[in-house]
Amino acid sequence: MEEVWVAGAAMNRFGKVPGMGREMAANVSLEAIEKSGISPKDIGYTFISNAFGISERQAHLGPLINTSLGIPEVPSATIESACSSSSAALHEAFVHIAGGFIDAALVVGVEKLSHLETLAATSYFAMGADYAFESKNGATFPGLYATLATAHMKKYGTKHEELGAIAVKNHVNASSNPHAHFQKPISMETYLNSPMVSFPLKLYDCCPFSDGAAAVVVVNPAKFKKDLKEVPAAIRASARAGSIAALQDRTDLTAIPASRLAADKALHQAKVEHKDIDFMEVHDCFTIAEVLAMEDMGFFAKGTAGKAAAEGQTRVDGKLPVNPSGGLKAKGHPVSATGAAQIVEVMEQFNGRAGKREVKGAEYALAHNVGATGGSCSVHILQRV
Amino acid sequence: MEEVWVAGAAMNRFGKVPGMGREMAANVSLEAIEKSGISPKDIGYTFISNAFGISERQAHLGPLINTSLGIPEVPSATIESACSSSSAALHEAFVHIAGGFIDAALVVGVEKLSHLETLAATSYFAMGADYAFESKNGATFPGLYATLATAHMKKYGTKHEELGAIAVKNHVNASSNPHAHFQKPISMETYLNSPMVSFPLKLYDCCPFSDGAAAVVVVNPAKFKKDLKEVPAAIRASARAGSIAALQDRTDLTAIPASRLAADKALHQAKVEHKDIDFMEVHDCFTIAEVLAMEDMGFFAKGTAGKAAAEGQTRVDGKLPVNPSGGLKAKGHPVSATGAAQIVEVMEQFNGRAGKREVKGAEYALAHNVGATGGSCSVHILQRV
Repeated sequence: MEEVWVAGAAMNRFGKVPGMGREMAANVSLEAIEKSGISPKDIGYTFISNAFGISERQAHLGPLINTSLGIPEVPSATIESACSSSSAALHEAFVHIAGGFIDAALVVGVEKLSHLETLAATSYFAMGADYAFESKNGATFPGLYATLATAHMKKYGTKHEELGAIAVKNHVNASSNPHAHFQKPISMETYLNSPMVSFPLKLYDCCPFSDGAAAVVVVNPAKFKKDLKEVPAAIRASARAGSIAALQDRTDLTAIPASRLAADKALHQAKVEHKDIDFMEVHDCFTIAEVLAMEDMGFFAKGTAGKAAAEGQTRVDGKLPVNPSGGLKAKGHPVSATGAAQIVEVMEQFNGRAGKREVKGAEYALAHNVGATGGSCSVHILQRV
Repeated sequence: MEEVWVAGAAMNRFGKVPGMGREMAANVSLEAIEKSGISPKDIGYTFISNAFGISERQAHLGPLINTSLGIPEVPSATIESACSSSSAALHEAFVHIAGGFIDAALVVGVEKLSHLETLAATSYFAMGADYAFESKNGATFPGLYATLATAHMKKYGTKHEELGAIAVKNHVNASSNPHAHFQKPISMETYLNSPMVSFPLKLYDCCPFSDGAAAVVVVNPAKFKKDLKEVPAAIRASARAGSIAALQDRTDLTAIPASRLAADKALHQAKVEHKDIDFMEVHDCFTIAEVLAMEDMGFFAKGTAGKAAAEGQTRVDGKLPVNPSGGLKAKGHPVSATGAAQIVEVMEQFNGRAGKREVKGAEYALAHNVGATGGSCSVHILQRV
């Protein structure tokens, strides 16, 4: 097994971005390559994520991006796993390099949906759910995550104020992230007074619709160590797992099995324990998702993560900072860019560019990215080199 | 590097298939697993291809298929590379197993577009081209391949009758393939009298729109050799490459650079020469594509493949049988199922189930799968074990 390092990463500011997805993707790719110190010609494979590119009438994005980079001869593939698409793409890049098949790969995730009406965009997102049993019958993600939130509240007594603490924290964190969609802190009062979207989830429990792109350059250090310009992040684990897709078929609505499985595999692979992780970027498409992530991965006992958030344990200056970037909640969630954007934050932190949201002295970071309501999950563990 | 063998493969009859893509995909997956002799529980990763699943309002197909197979915990990802999607997925499976990350994988490609009007289906297919520079301006694949055919005819004097010989051969081959969309031979007269679709391509130069699914089970023989029920096909090479996507940006319209690159890599990887290949399944979405494949991969000199076809050299009883299955042209071309279906034909041949289209004594087979007009290409070389 070869070592695999993240050598460079870049993203644009998430939000409403003009132009085509392919342009965004090429731009952040060039920036990530430039930061890394390697040359486009060194790239052996390009892994793209763009789950809903068909809304722009464009599939087969790889040759377009590679042509923009001046490397049309390089093979490419688009990797889709709903909201966990670009972490799934990173996993492919990891396997190709760790297995010795190539020495460097580009991973780029992009999503552009702001040209659609809100209802049309929602209906694209809903394609990540089980159409026959969920979305066809009217369920979209706010409703599906509301179901998980209701079950969690009922079983564990999880409170609005606990979910609100997560929203407030992530908006504070995003306020010092120049790439974040939302850059204003919110108060608990604002949270509590925000309109109900799908009971029990209020407006500020939900991530926004964002356009955006994020790119990650991964390399075998045996080949490229001398060329690198950034403090690299060694990928100590790249693990994925699945769950039953449709909520109706699950036996327990208070946990996402794929998160537990992927985290168990990742901790074992990285040979680290929970206490070794200095901060995490987790999948908080809704505040309840951050609660589930913290509990399902074993960082907090079931039913206690909301309380821990309310006590400030997951703030940047807390015991275990969660989503210093602002998370999907406030940084934004351009579906296929999200997994790669989590790695951008790890690189910003490791390279001392996180400003007010810096997690001081961080050595190990964990990135947790969920597809839909947990049909898929990826967990990566990265170490500052 | 671990060895990687195809242990089982299955497909449905291509054509207009009722029901949802997910059902087709689950059915052929179960059949391929059953044939292989391994158990669903042995599968370490599922790679799906379903480029246009969004026409059924369903992305994130992996958890649905894995749930149908009773293995929801297994990770999955959907791999898209236009018409070369499922060969790109097979490449991922190969890398995961050869690199020792997993011991068995399922690759399944599926496409279901017959619920759409013809124009809508065409416009889905066109998403594999460069939207900004090709499809947005009205170019669809018959027109783009017609451009390649015109250039080839002009430079090399390639004749309608040569393209017709390919159509006639592939329809004859498909007539003994129970999985083929078209199962009736056609005459040269029928070919020549068929209406013009896009000059110089006539109706019988074009593959049909087909629904369909094909699945391939790949394993590490060190782990599963004793369980296998079929004559396996060892994957001796799995290679991919790219080209500039938009035809307008290429310097030569008489060749597809990615085909040459991928074939060169594959022959080198497999340590075999052109003369060792006993038959090939190549990407003949249009008859001209079969000409290009044979020439670009170096099996025939540029400008001579049409003549070779007209002389019968590529018939099942010829010097180098090409597309014994009937090819995309007559077996059908459900976009994301095509790469996997080529492997089904290899297994049918190696297991003595090819009937009248059998290539006697075949040891080495090559499968060549192109994305769009050659922005991507995969070449696999397989050896009868």
